[in-house]
Amino acid sequence: METIAENRCFGGEQGVHRHRSEACGGDMTFGLFLPDEARDGPVPVLWVLAGLTCTHENAMTKAAAQGWAAEQGIALVFPDTSPRGEDVADDEAFDLGKGAGFYVNATEAPWAPHFRMWDYIAKELPALLEAEFPLDMARQAITGHSMGGHGALTLAMSLPGRFRSVSAFAPIAHPTQSDWGRKQFAAYLGADESRWAAHDATLLMRDKGFDGPVLIDQGADDQFLDLLKPEALAEAMATRRQDGAFRMQKGYDHSYFFISTFMEDHVSFHAEALYADAR
Amino acid sequence: METIAENRCFGGEQGVHRHRSEACGGDMTFGLFLPDEARDGPVPVLWVLAGLTCTHENAMTKAAAQGWAAEQGIALVFPDTSPRGEDVADDEAFDLGKGAGFYVNATEAPWAPHFRMWDYIAKELPALLEAEFPLDMARQAITGHSMGGHGALTLAMSLPGRFRSVSAFAPIAHPTQSDWGRKQFAAYLGADESRWAAHDATLLMRDKGFDGPVLIDQGADDQFLDLLKPEALAEAMATRRQDGAFRMQKGYDHSYFFISTFMEDHVSFHAEALYADAR
Repeated sequence: METIAENRCFGGEQGVHRHRSEACGGDMTFGLFLPDEARDGPVPVLWVLAGLTCTHENAMTKAAAQGWAAEQGIALVFPDTSPRGEDVADDEAFDLGKGAGFYVNATEAPWAPHFRMWDYIAKELPALLEAEFPLDMARQAITGHSMGGHGALTLAMSLPGRFRSVSAFAPIAHPTQSDWGRKQFAAYLGADESRWAAHDATLLMRDKGFDGPVLIDQGADDQFLDLLKPEALAEAMATRRQDGAFRMQKGYDHSYFFISTFMEDHVSFHAEALYADAR
Repeated sequence: METIAENRCFGGEQGVHRHRSEACGGDMTFGLFLPDEARDGPVPVLWVLAGLTCTHENAMTKAAAQGWAAEQGIALVFPDTSPRGEDVADDEAFDLGKGAGFYVNATEAPWAPHFRMWDYIAKELPALLEAEFPLDMARQAITGHSMGGHGALTLAMSLPGRFRSVSAFAPIAHPTQSDWGRKQFAAYLGADESRWAAHDATLLMRDKGFDGPVLIDQGADDQFLDLLKPEALAEAMATRRQDGAFRMQKGYDHSYFFISTFMEDHVSFHAEALYADAR
């Protein structure tokens, strides 16, 4: 692992690190914010998964999460959204290929050799983080935006016991019924739709839910409401009596201005879960 | 004037606007954050001047200022750092030409026709803002980063009564004695160094100071300390008994991670001055 950058930030360190990834078959880059408390021992960690077209950098520079994380003594991980490199397949569309990994393990050509973002986020990166940094991997939480909200919700529900809490900003909530989902799942996972269900937050919420609190923020003026389908997830959460809240935020859109506005709430929400047995 | 974007943000609106600039002889773009209070009447305004290579967008997306401005009911203006367009002169170096206006009115070829950022920030843009938006121009404050810190300090000291308070993050503090200054002033203003003095914050501080509070934050691990020359400004402030504070921040560098860390302090500092006769 190679450290590319380290910047002091809210009393802690914002780092950027690069490493050889087996899951993705190439070099991967991630951001890691460590609060000052990490110098004294392992700290809880909040995963922040980004959306379409993003790299590790977008949320790290624009979501304004570090200040709140520093206040709570929580680390933040900012992974990339897809494999990278010249030998990695891509598509002209912004919503397929690089920058659009959709947090699945691709089984189809030409994607299968590198597009294994599920294994990367669920297995490889956590193992690396645990080995290299002062992180308390018994205290993890996860959030994300748009495609990253989809990733956060599907990972949290599919890995019971892994995350204490999950939140999302404007998640792609029902991808098996959306053009943000059907196209990508067909490409990455093949035509058999039964293999898509494990990657649909609404279907997972209907089927099993999440064993902890859930917080969803959705802008009412989001330009992508038709593709995100928040109403399906809201209905599934209510039907399951899922612990948590689905909030429709009047006037907000899909941008990082929306995310930064509500980031304090999300970090506080996760801190409560992460420190539930310690306070 | 044309509105390019509007995003709801911390209960207010983050807008981006484009207009024909006489001073710069072409189209100019700026960001304007209006807090919710602006719907009820004019609000105070804090100018945020950006550094080398920046456009109107950098501080608007990475400085994390809107949340604190919303809390204080203050508007934020994010101007561009130079004229733009195909007919505008440029240089291969990142620190001359586009993205490097240095907040002066150029008198020399090939810069003179467009590089009039002093007039743009001191005259044209304030007049446009007053005409078009609910801003209380009797309550203005100014801050900036690096080259923008230079701009904030020189404008504030040269326009007595205009700004209630001035602050800067890692300003170019003594450009007449730095390669960030000498090269640009020679290009924009010509070889006669007597014409440079009006654009040197340290010289202005020695000569007249600022009639209000000054706050300077400087990272101790800033990679550009040799070019910024903060010690000259600190000495000048202390010698003049200037109301204010010069803070050396251990471990911090020149990045937006440094800026966002201390933005809450700066917005609070300006709010105190902006509301001094109202609270």
